[in-house]
Amino acid sequence: RRDLHNFRDSGRLLCLVLIVSVLMGVAAWAFLSSLSFVTHVREGQPALFLLLPVVGVLTVWLYRTYGGRATKGNNLVIESAGTGLLIKARMAILTFTCSVATHLAGGSAGREGTAVQIGGTIASNVSGLAKLKTYDHRDLVLAGISAAFGAVFGTPLAGAFFGMEMCFVGKLEYGVALYCLVASFTGDAVARFLGAHHGVNLITAVPALSIKTLGLSLVAAIIFGWIARLFTALIRTIKQLYARWAGHYIVPILAGSIVLTLLFLFTGARHYAGLSEWMVPAAFAGKTSLIDVASKLILTCLTLGTGFQGGEVTPLFGIGAALGGWLGTLVGLDPTLPAALGMLAVFGSALNVPVTTIMLAIDLFGGVGMHYFVIVVFVSYFITGHHGVYTAQRIMSPKR
Amino acid sequence: RRDLHNFRDSGRLLCLVLIVSVLMGVAAWAFLSSLSFVTHVREGQPALFLLLPVVGVLTVWLYRTYGGRATKGNNLVIESAGTGLLIKARMAILTFTCSVATHLAGGSAGREGTAVQIGGTIASNVSGLAKLKTYDHRDLVLAGISAAFGAVFGTPLAGAFFGMEMCFVGKLEYGVALYCLVASFTGDAVARFLGAHHGVNLITAVPALSIKTLGLSLVAAIIFGWIARLFTALIRTIKQLYARWAGHYIVPILAGSIVLTLLFLFTGARHYAGLSEWMVPAAFAGKTSLIDVASKLILTCLTLGTGFQGGEVTPLFGIGAALGGWLGTLVGLDPTLPAALGMLAVFGSALNVPVTTIMLAIDLFGGVGMHYFVIVVFVSYFITGHHGVYTAQRIMSPKR
Repeated sequence: RRDLHNFRDSGRLLCLVLIVSVLMGVAAWAFLSSLSFVTHVREGQPALFLLLPVVGVLTVWLYRTYGGRATKGNNLVIESAGTGLLIKARMAILTFTCSVATHLAGGSAGREGTAVQIGGTIASNVSGLAKLKTYDHRDLVLAGISAAFGAVFGTPLAGAFFGMEMCFVGKLEYGVALYCLVASFTGDAVARFLGAHHGVNLITAVPALSIKTLGLSLVAAIIFGWIARLFTALIRTIKQLYARWAGHYIVPILAGSIVLTLLFLFTGARHYAGLSEWMVPAAFAGKTSLIDVASKLILTCLTLGTGFQGGEVTPLFGIGAALGGWLGTLVGLDPTLPAALGMLAVFGSALNVPVTTIMLAIDLFGGVGMHYFVIVVFVSYFITGHHGVYTAQRIMSPKR
Repeated sequence: RRDLHNFRDSGRLLCLVLIVSVLMGVAAWAFLSSLSFVTHVREGQPALFLLLPVVGVLTVWLYRTYGGRATKGNNLVIESAGTGLLIKARMAILTFTCSVATHLAGGSAGREGTAVQIGGTIASNVSGLAKLKTYDHRDLVLAGISAAFGAVFGTPLAGAFFGMEMCFVGKLEYGVALYCLVASFTGDAVARFLGAHHGVNLITAVPALSIKTLGLSLVAAIIFGWIARLFTALIRTIKQLYARWAGHYIVPILAGSIVLTLLFLFTGARHYAGLSEWMVPAAFAGKTSLIDVASKLILTCLTLGTGFQGGEVTPLFGIGAALGGWLGTLVGLDPTLPAALGMLAVFGSALNVPVTTIMLAIDLFGGVGMHYFVIVVFVSYFITGHHGVYTAQRIMSPKR
C-alpha cells in the first residue's frame, strides 16, 4: 500500500477523482433534469401508466440480453470496489435509460440506485483507462459512489460518508475520506452549477431532551427500524418468488406491471407513482397517514421487486417521513422533527449506513436536533438486523 | 458472540452500563469540583508553584512503587478493552489524586486522561464482579470510556463516539454504539445534575463555502495537523530522554519540575499553568498569538512528558483555539470559526478520533459550520500520521 508521503501517486489519484466527480456531476444533472421532465409529462397524462408493461418487459429483456453482470445493480458496484472487477460502460447507459423510462411510466422508484451505478461505472472505466492497481481502483470507485450520492441529492457531507460506508455493514472506510470528500463536494457543485436544485424542509420545533421525548424517540426508532426491515424483506420475497418461476421469464414482469398499471389507473395508488416528492413536505405539515406509508411501501416493493430500474432512497424518505409525521401528530407534537427523524432513520437502517445518515441530517436540516438524530438512527440501525437493501455488503461488525 | 435477539444478556449488560455510567458521572463531578477548587486556590497563591517538585517526585514514586501497570495510563485502558485484562481499583485512585495535585501545583495538563482511566477502572471492576466474558468486558470498558468523556466535557455525542473510536486508528466500533450512547448521555446527565457546568463559546460568523474559504481551510488544516504532530512528537521525545537516563529515577522528574517551577514563578509562563481555561474564550475573541500556542505547547509537553498525571485534551483545545483564532485575525476573518476549527482539529488529529471530533463540533457549537469542520478535521487527521497521543491504538485502516 502507498505511504502517506507518496504524494505523486496520491496526487494522480486525486486528479482522477476530480475527473470522475465532474463527469458524475454532469451525469447527475442530466439524470435529474430528465426525471423532472418525464415526471412533469406523466403528471399531465395519466394514460402513460399504460406504458408500464412495455417498460417493464423491455427493461427485463434488455438486462437479460445485454446486461450481463449489470443485473446485479448496486451490488456489482460494491463487488467492483472489493475485487477490482471492471464495470462495462453499458451498465450506466442501461440504468440511466431504464430508470427514466420507469419514471415516465410512473413506477414507484427512486434515484440513488441509478446514480450509484452511473458513478461506479464512470469510476471503474476511468480506473481501467488509467490502469490503476486494485487498491487505487477501490478508492476511485468509492469516490465515484460519493460523487453520485452527493450530486443527486445535493448533500455533500452525506455523499462523502456514503462512499466510505455503503459497501459494508458496521464499517467506515477512513482511508478514503479525503477522496470521498473531494468527490462528493465536486459532484454536488457541478450538478448545482448546471442547474440542479433540491427541495428544502425545515424543522420548526425541537423539544428539549427529556425522559418523555427520549422514550417517544426510542419507540419511534424501533418502529422505523421495523418498517425498514419490512421494506427489505418484502422486496427480497418478491424477487425470490420471481426467481422460482419455472415458465418464461417475461411472464412475472408482465403480470407485475399489469397489476401496477391497473392500480395506478383505477385506484388512489396513482398518488404514489414515480418519486412522489410531495410526501416529505406533506409529512412535515403533519398531513400524512398510515395509508400513505403502506401504499408507498407496497407500490415501491412491487416496482423494484419485479425488475424495474430505479433507486430505493427517495421512496424510503417518503415512507419514513410519512410515518414519522403521522406518529408526531398522533402524540400531539410538532410533526417536523418526527417526520425528519422517520425520513432519515428508515433510509439509514434499510441501507445500513448510520454515520451517513447523521451527516445527512446535517446536510438537510443544518445540524438542528442532532441528539435525536444520533439516538434514533443508531437504535433503528440495530433493529433492522443484517439484511439490508444491498445484499453484497460485507458484515464487518455484527449487530448484537 | 451474542445474537441480536439475545435480549437477556444484552439487557444485563445494559444494566451494568447504567451502573458504570452513574458511578462515572459522580466521579466526574467530584473530579471537576476538585479541579475548580484547587485551581481557584492556586490562582490566589502563586507560591503553590513551589509544590511542583514535591508533587512530581511523589507522583513518580507512587506510580513506581504502587502503580504496577497503571503507569501505562490510557494505554492500559485500551489494552484492557482489547484483551479483557482487569484493571485494579488503585489506578483510579492514583490518577484522581495525582491529577488534582498536578493542578494544585499549577502543572499544565488536562482532564480526559484522568477521566478515561477512572471510567476504565470502574468498568473493569464492575466487569470483574459480574464475571463478564471477554467481549462483554470490552463493550463495558468502551462504554466506561464514553461515560468518562461525555461527563467530564459535558459533550454526550462526542463521548459516545469517543468510546467507539479511541482504541483504534481508522476504525469506529459500530457494535457498541447503543451502550456508548447510553453511557455518555447518562454520565453527562448525572454530572450535570450534581452541579457540573461547562463554558460555552459561540461561533458568530460562518462564511459561505467558496474557493477562497476552502483554500484557507485547507492551509489551516495542514497547520493544525502539523501542530498536533509536533505535540505528540515532543511528549514522546521527552519521555524517551527520561527513559534513557541511567542514574536514579527521581533525578529527571526533580530536574523537570524545578525547571517548570522557575518558569512559572519568574516568567510569563504562569498564564499557561493548570487548565488555562481562559485560552479558548480569548481565542474566540481574537486575542491570542503564536506566543500562546508555543508556550502552552512546551509547558504541557514538559508537564506530561516528565511524569505528572493529567490529560491532553484541555491543553490541546487551548493550543488549537489560540492558533486558529490567531490565523483567523491574520487573514482578516471573524476569529470564532477559525478558533473553533483549530480547537477541534488539533485535538482530533493528536488523538486520531475524527468522527468523535465531528460530533464534538455538534455538541459544542450546535451544528454550525459543519462543512468546514468535516473537511478540516479529516485533512488534519491525515496530516498527523499514525503516531498519536495513545501509543496502544491499533492501526485498523492506515492513512495513505
